[in-house]
Amino acid sequence: PFLRFTSNFHAMQIFTTAEFQQMERRYRAAFLNSLGGFKSVNLIGTQDEAGRTNLAIFNSIFHLGANPPLLGMVLRPHTVERHTLENILQTGAYTINHISEAIFRQAHQASAAYDREVSEFEACGLTPTYRSFCPAPFVQESPLQIGLKLVEKIDVQWNGTHIIIGEITGVAVPEHCIGEDGFVDIERAGSITCSGLDAYHLTRRLARLSYAKPGVPITEIPQLP
Amino acid sequence: PFLRFTSNFHAMQIFTTAEFQQMERRYRAAFLNSLGGFKSVNLIGTQDEAGRTNLAIFNSIFHLGANPPLLGMVLRPHTVERHTLENILQTGAYTINHISEAIFRQAHQASAAYDREVSEFEACGLTPTYRSFCPAPFVQESPLQIGLKLVEKIDVQWNGTHIIIGEITGVAVPEHCIGEDGFVDIERAGSITCSGLDAYHLTRRLARLSYAKPGVPITEIPQLP
Repeated sequence: PFLRFTSNFHAMQIFTTAEFQQMERRYRAAFLNSLGGFKSVNLIGTQDEAGRTNLAIFNSIFHLGANPPLLGMVLRPHTVERHTLENILQTGAYTINHISEAIFRQAHQASAAYDREVSEFEACGLTPTYRSFCPAPFVQESPLQIGLKLVEKIDVQWNGTHIIIGEITGVAVPEHCIGEDGFVDIERAGSITCSGLDAYHLTRRLARLSYAKPGVPITEIPQLP
Repeated sequence: PFLRFTSNFHAMQIFTTAEFQQMERRYRAAFLNSLGGFKSVNLIGTQDEAGRTNLAIFNSIFHLGANPPLLGMVLRPHTVERHTLENILQTGAYTINHISEAIFRQAHQASAAYDREVSEFEACGLTPTYRSFCPAPFVQESPLQIGLKLVEKIDVQWNGTHIIIGEITGVAVPEHCIGEDGFVDIERAGSITCSGLDAYHLTRRLARLSYAKPGVPITEIPQLP
């Protein structure tokens, strides 16, 4: 009826605020987490002041700037025990580790609610490793590993979430994935993407496209050799 | 030499703050934009108070919460003309439109620096359409279309970027992509992902994984019929 119409030959279904409010809690979380599009999915490595390591999976990392090199990350309200947030605030350091097809099940297991005494590295069968440019633990099995220091914490008024902003202090990148123009081919590195709360996806590159200018046809940038 | 070692059988190359600072500006932007992982890629539709439409491509949309339903978006410093930001602040409304393989070249063209008098809808061959739940223009060719109202603008102290937070007022989703548990299969909808500044990728689902609990084996959630 009036709520339906076609676009691209598919019937579209409309949901508005009234429908969102009527959704059961878990249905609503699954539905709304799917809407923004594909997301990065990373393992966040931290440790507390006593050196107890922690690992958590996050799909809310976003690029915030190249100069200085900044990444942002969303963390849920600090009303229950949040080991990752507490460790970052305690030590000022954390790592972001890409996830490959080889480790995505172990990475997903890191989302289970382990006690503070349990290291998710051990529980999930992943190996902590350390690098000179960041005191927090990296995931040795990860195809691309980033070290960061905390520079800003923003409290979102509207829903009580926190946005943590970190400056990249160093990164380990597979050398066969770095292009002459600085592009890092994370598909070749084996990084995967995710959608919703629990779906993991491989990628297949369509194209890299040239810098767009008004009235100038776009061309494709060749793959790495 | 000392900067190299192996992980997962690939030589890893290390870059730290000193290397970032020595990178040429465009190399640095390409390199650092690649690091966070795969990103959502969306067309943002807006219009000014006079009704002049604008379309821009963004890869910085992130999920911020399900209740209320919020999405965040990063916008660069407001030092040059930024039509999208100005229109959102003027009208309080914008749309987020997923991109499919059928329209990614046109979507990329929307990143060109058009004058305010030019609508990127027309310049890129995309069709503005309107829906009852949001006064900003949607992209008719988009496989998943979200309407939002501005609720919070955050200025990041560290680098002058802005984070715009919007509440979802409504969404149009292909009805064959909605699961019984609320999961929206955006791969089936045809949405694509991106990496770096200019790379576009199709996806292929590996699996949906069950809710993780300590000591409980993960199972796979079946595909939609």
